[in-house]
This record gives sequence, structure tokens and C-alpha cells, in this order.
Amino acid sequence: VSEFSHEHLVQLYETDLMGIVHHANYLRFLEESRVAWATNKGLLDYQKIESASHLAVYGSEVRHIQPAFFGDRLRTFVQAKIKGVKIIFEYKTFCINRDQTKSDVLVLEGRTTHVPLNKELKLIRPPIEMKKIMENEKWIETWLLNL
Amino acid sequence: VSEFSHEHLVQLYETDLMGIVHHANYLRFLEESRVAWATNKGLLDYQKIESASHLAVYGSEVRHIQPAFFGDRLRTFVQAKIKGVKIIFEYKTFCINRDQTKSDVLVLEGRTTHVPLNKELKLIRPPIEMKKIMENEKWIETWLLNL
Amino acid sequence: VSEFSHEHLVQLYETDLMGIVHHANYLRFLEESRVAWATNKGLLDYQKIESASHLAVYGSEVRHIQPAFFGDRLRTFVQAKIKGVKIIFEYKTFCINRDQTKSDVLVLEGRTTHVPLNKELKLIRPPIEMKKIMENEKWIETWLLNL
Amino acid sequence: VSEFSHEHLVQLYETDLMGIVHHANYLRFLEESRVAWATNKGLLDYQKIESASHLAVYGSEVRHIQPAFFGDRLRTFVQAKIKGVKIIFEYKTFCINRDQTKSDVLVLEGRTTHVPLNKELKLIRPPIEMKKIMENEKWIETWLLNL
Repeated sequence: VSEFSHEHLVQLYETDLMGIVHHANYLRFLEESRVAWATNKGLLDYQKIESASHLAVYGSEVRHIQPAFFGDRLRTFVQAKIKGVKIIFEYKTFCINRDQTKSDVLVLEGRTTHVPLNKELKLIRPPIEMKKIMENEKWIETWLLNL
Repeated sequence: VSEFSHEHLVQLYETDLMGIVHHANYLRFLEESRVAWATNKGLLDYQKIESASHLAVYGSEVRHIQPAFFGDRLRTFVQAKIKGVKIIFEYKTFCINRDQTKSDVLVLEGRTTHVPLNKELKLIRPPIEMKKIMENEKWIETWLLNL
Repeated sequence: VSEFSHEHLVQLYETDLMGIVHHANYLRFLEESRVAWATNKGLLDYQKIESASHLAVYGSEVRHIQPAFFGDRLRTFVQAKIKGVKIIFEYKTFCINRDQTKSDVLVLEGRTTHVPLNKELKLIRPPIEMKKIMENEKWIETWLLNL
Repeated sequence: VSEFSHEHLVQLYETDLMGIVHHANYLRFLEESRVAWATNKGLLDYQKIESASHLAVYGSEVRHIQPAFFGDRLRTFVQAKIKGVKIIFEYKTFCINRDQTKSDVLVLEGRTTHVPLNKELKLIRPPIEMKKIMENEKWIETWLLNL
């Protein structure tokens, strides 16, 4: 379905005393995927971020299906759409090839909603090029099965 | 409504390049409030945590209302209930007394759902003393207005 | 020796899979102590930080003596001096009253060196009021025994 | 000199309100490089880490030369040696190709010292295979110029 995906290798500093990835870190991995997606679409130029608008997080929902461990390769698939001033991202994160097994394990499903803010943290309209790209993205309503 | 609350002073290392608290940190503050709540109720003994069960995060939802800044005092109110094997926490986080003003600002509303796991990360029944305390907690269905 | 100290309660999200505080977090606790010290001395006004100079970290040294655990109360003592354009902080962090024992355990000794930068990240002279306060601070050369 | 290096792409969540990478995160990047080095040498098997010894951080020193920004590619070079029970890593981190310029910028130099601990956090001798590999590593005393 979603063509775009981004991989994150779980670091020691992302685990907690239960030996698994601490749940707050997943929002970081989702941001990483979102930034990679935007870079891939030509929407993000790191070197101009200071002058650019910013997609503030308005809401987030995460459903954890399986824990992830140090050294796991987590691959996150992304879909995005625009709806008025809101930009919505959905994510599925899989653990790839743990224990050399072939089947990937669904680790989480997530959704984040964003609004564009300027540098003074005031709400602005989504930039036109962002709107154009977003409107051409494939979006499947029933993509997330657990959220 | 909820009597219990916990305060967190926003640190420099919790901000990002937008000059505001990075959204992933709020899940940490909610955990902090949850742990403080459990300690307050006598449900958590730090020194026995290794032998104890663990409340794994099953799901989270956060709605961000206002940004928070370095040096802000964030006070989080908590309510909790048990529902089958699931334990549900709801949160309201306010910024207290910014700019010496009297009115507090609602920063976020959140909800996290948990299941008790043992050290091998297997699902277990909620410990009896936890169940007892949870069932006696006040719970207001309509407490969160934005989520 | 040093009168000023600051306490941090170790959070779950600050531990790693070894069950102890991840070492990178100690630099955060030292920053917390430094900020608390500067606030205590009247050098820091959170609400003006945007317009103010910033003490960039030029160097850090940490010696870990004992591990710290979830729920530990870590009390950090601070001494500070100014030396040319450099501002030097030294720290001793103790774990307080673990297992209800009376003796505190030395967790780490640390030293951070800073230079004042303006918002454009250019080196500036230390603000006069900072200089004045720093020069009146007590400083004991041999305070750190392990670094 | 050092053949091994590891790259880290700076994430939004690693910046702070000054718009630069928060200094505590560099210890994380150094750990990342160290883990990548150990994996590269065949010393680390993620899936066996629970049963393995652990290289606890005994000390760290970092000298920050230049700030790093969101989107920067940071490449860290590593050298390692063993000295009694202590294992020493040294690091040089460069920002690669910022603004499409050809010359890399030295961001930091660092050194971390480690001791092997077992799961009960007791000091043990370095595992033999680790010792062997470490003793065959190239080590240049004067590699770090700023620390």
C-alpha cells in the first residue's frame, strides 16, 4: 500500500529497565519517519528549516502491539493526507528479520495530526507545495487495523 | 475533580529547535505523573520493582492544546480506572503561573492504557491490591474535554 | 563545602536495559543542577532566556563511581568559577537514603566548561552580573577526588 | 588513521531551544558508534546481549569544537584499546558535507573508558575474544588534538 518506509536501528539508550524500547521513543521514531518522508517528497530542506513553517503536533495516537528490543531493525511505513488546515500521518512499524526469521512482526500502529505554525508559533495555512503533494498521496482509510 | 497532581519543571534538554517542549517528552511527563500517583497510593515500591509486575503501555492518545517552554511549571492531574485486564489513566496538564499570571493554561489532555506484564513480558492479571485501589478511585467519564 | 545542591528523582524513562540510569542522562542532571544554581543566584530568568546569552558547553568530564537506579534520589552539589571567558562548574552527585540507609553514596563527579554565546552562536564576553557573582563564589581546587 | 566510522543523521528531537544538538545527545551518538564498532568486529550479538557482559561507562570526556544542527550528517571515527581491565574508546565526530561544501567540520573529540560488568553489575575480566580483538587494534596516542 504505502510505498515509503524508513528504518531505525534500536539503540541501547532507547531501552528501559524492562529491557524493551521505552514507549516515548516511538514518537521519536515516527517523527524520524515523517521527516524522512518529507525529505523524500522534496518538502523539507534542512538548511532552510529556520525560515520555514513547522508542522506542530496537534495530536497523537499509538497502539503498541509487540515490544521491540535493542538491536531490532524497525521499519516504519507512512501514509499522509491533508484535511483543511490539518495534516494527518499514519504509521505502521514492523520489526524486520529478528532472529533471522522471515516474517516481520507488527510493533505498532500510529497516527499523528499536525498544523502548520510559523516561527512565532501562530497557525498558518499549509504551504501550497505541501498541499499539492499531500493531495496527490494515496490514502487508504482502513490501512490501520488496530487503531 | 482529580485530587492527585504532580509537577514537572521543564528543562532545557526537553526543548527543541522550535523553542518549545518536544512532543515526545510529554509521554515522559505523563509516566512521571503515573509513577507519582502509584507511589502516592502505595502501589509502587521502587526497591521492589525488579520483582514486581510492570504496567506496559498498550496505547496512548495525546491532544496538545498549548505549547510549553523552558522553565514552565507543568502540573498534571491524574485519574485512573481498571476495566478487565486493562488499566486506564487520564491526564490534564496545566502550565502554572507563567509570567506571574494567575490563570493556568491547559497544555494537554492525554490517555494511556496499560496491561500488567511479568518480567518475561507475559500478560498477567492485575495484582489484587492494585485492583482494589483502582476500583475505589473516582472516575469521571467526561473529564477530558478535548480528546 | 558547596552550599548549593539540587535533587533529581530518577525516572523510569532514564533507565536502560541494564536496569540502571543510562550514562548520557547524567549530563542532563548536571544541566538541571546548573540551571537551578543559576536561578538560585538570580542569573537566570526563564522568561527572558530568548533574549539572553547562553552558556554553551565547551567540554565535559564525568567519572561514574556507582550506578543509580529507578526511584533513586540523586542530590547534586555544585561549585562554579570564572576563568577568562570560560565558566567552569564542578559537581558531586550522591544517591540519598537508598534502602533507608543513612549513608549517602557517591554516584559521580563531574566538570563542565562553558563559554557564553549570543543567539547567533558567536562567542561573547560573560555578562557583568554573571562575572560578579562567579567571582564571589567559593571554589575549592581539590573538591573533586576522582576526576 | 581509524578505518571504522559510523554515521548519524541529526533528528529534530535531538536539538534544543538554541537550535543546535543538545550536548547530552553526543554521548548517545558515541555509544551508537561504539556499538556499531563492536558489531563490526563481531564482538556484539544483539540477540545474546542479555546473557553477555556489559561495558559499563566508567568515565567520559568530550570537547565540543563546533555545534551541529538538525539534518546534519555526523560521522564518528573510533579507535579502541584495552589496558588492564579498562577498555578505552576515542572518537572524532565530523559534520559531513553541510551546505554541499566539500570540507568536513570537526564537531567534537571524545574519550570514554569502560569496565566489563556482569548482569549483577559486578566487575569481571574482559572476555577473551574482546581482549584479543582489542589488542590487535591500531591505536594512535596523539590522535585527539583537542582533548
